[in-house]
Amino acid sequence: MKDETKPDVLKRLKKAEGQLQGVLKMVESDRYCVDVLRQMQAVRGALVSIERLVVDDHVETCVDHALTSGNLDDRREKVRELADVLSGRKR
Amino acid sequence: MKDETKPDVLKRLKKAEGQLQGVLKMVESDRYCVDVLRQMQAVRGALVSIERLVVDDHVETCVDHALTSGNLDDRREKVRELADVLSGRKR
Amino acid sequence: MKDETKPDVLKRLKKAEGQLQGVLKMVESDRYCVDVLRQMQAVRGALVSIERLVVDDHVETCVDHALTSGNLDDRREKVRELADVLSGRKR
Amino acid sequence: MKDETKPDVLKRLKKAEGQLQGVLKMVESDRYCVDVLRQMQAVRGALVSIERLVVDDHVETCVDHALTSGNLDDRREKVRELADVLSGRKR
Repeated sequence: MKDETKPDVLKRLKKAEGQLQGVLKMVESDRYCVDVLRQMQAVRGALVSIERLVVDDHVETCVDHALTSGNLDDRREKVRELADVLSGRKR
Repeated sequence: MKDETKPDVLKRLKKAEGQLQGVLKMVESDRYCVDVLRQMQAVRGALVSIERLVVDDHVETCVDHALTSGNLDDRREKVRELADVLSGRKR
Repeated sequence: MKDETKPDVLKRLKKAEGQLQGVLKMVESDRYCVDVLRQMQAVRGALVSIERLVVDDHVETCVDHALTSGNLDDRREKVRELADVLSGRKR
Repeated sequence: MKDETKPDVLKRLKKAEGQLQGVLKMVESDRYCVDVLRQMQAVRGALVSIERLVVDDHVETCVDHALTSGNLDDRREKVRELADVLSGRKR
């Protein structure tokens, strides 16, 4: 991961972890279910945003390296892998 | 939350928290981005499953209480709230 | 469906149908795949918005009728059904 | 689009169009809202499957052409575009 991406991703992941720990406490203290659900949706939303950062970084580093290297098979593999992970498919 | 639901939800939330901590370690140790993405998707998938448990429990407890109570406004509010949270809307 | 909802839903459905027919023409005339994908995503987005109108109308008509009627089983069935369809589950 | 992909995509799009016309008739004839919602969800599900066919075809044709051509900028553009459309982003 690029130097400028990694700290940002780590910071956001830690925040999402804190939110998830908050959900745990809400359930332990019998907080209202709808509030629990909203907090879980917020964690999922945060993860989607972080995933986008990781995808962009991946495209600009690992995939880009393959695009510039001489190896056609590697390029094809990186693109195939990118399409699968973004479509939620496990090839 | 019902007695039989709460421990299950807590157990699953703790597992999701562990998975998220795993993602943090993967990023810290520069693991391959696609593996990080897949692990994040797995956390999101786990959260969706847990949310369903919480929704079912909510329907069978808080909402059901309103359906059996005499208060029409409360029934309407509970149903409106359920529709909004399941549609991802924040009224 | 309420008198004021039905024409709006029909108008939007016809528009979505037109968009989908547009996608068919794009594929027939070998338009660029990414443009086809974006148009399909637009149709899905339109359907999500229309579904919300239908959900709101359903809550305010069929479900509300059950909430005001004396029949507790019917109330429970309507709420259960609403939670299932909004969670994309086919009980 | 590849010769073997196009007819399949067209056939599925026509089926989805038929399903959407079915939804229109359901609303016109005041069919039960939950049945309408389920049918709309089915159309969305069909579109997601068709989109995957289009993505796979795009990866194996347009993107692959760029991967094999000498033009690095074109390769980068194709990959960037693929990541954006699969993340639902309009750059």
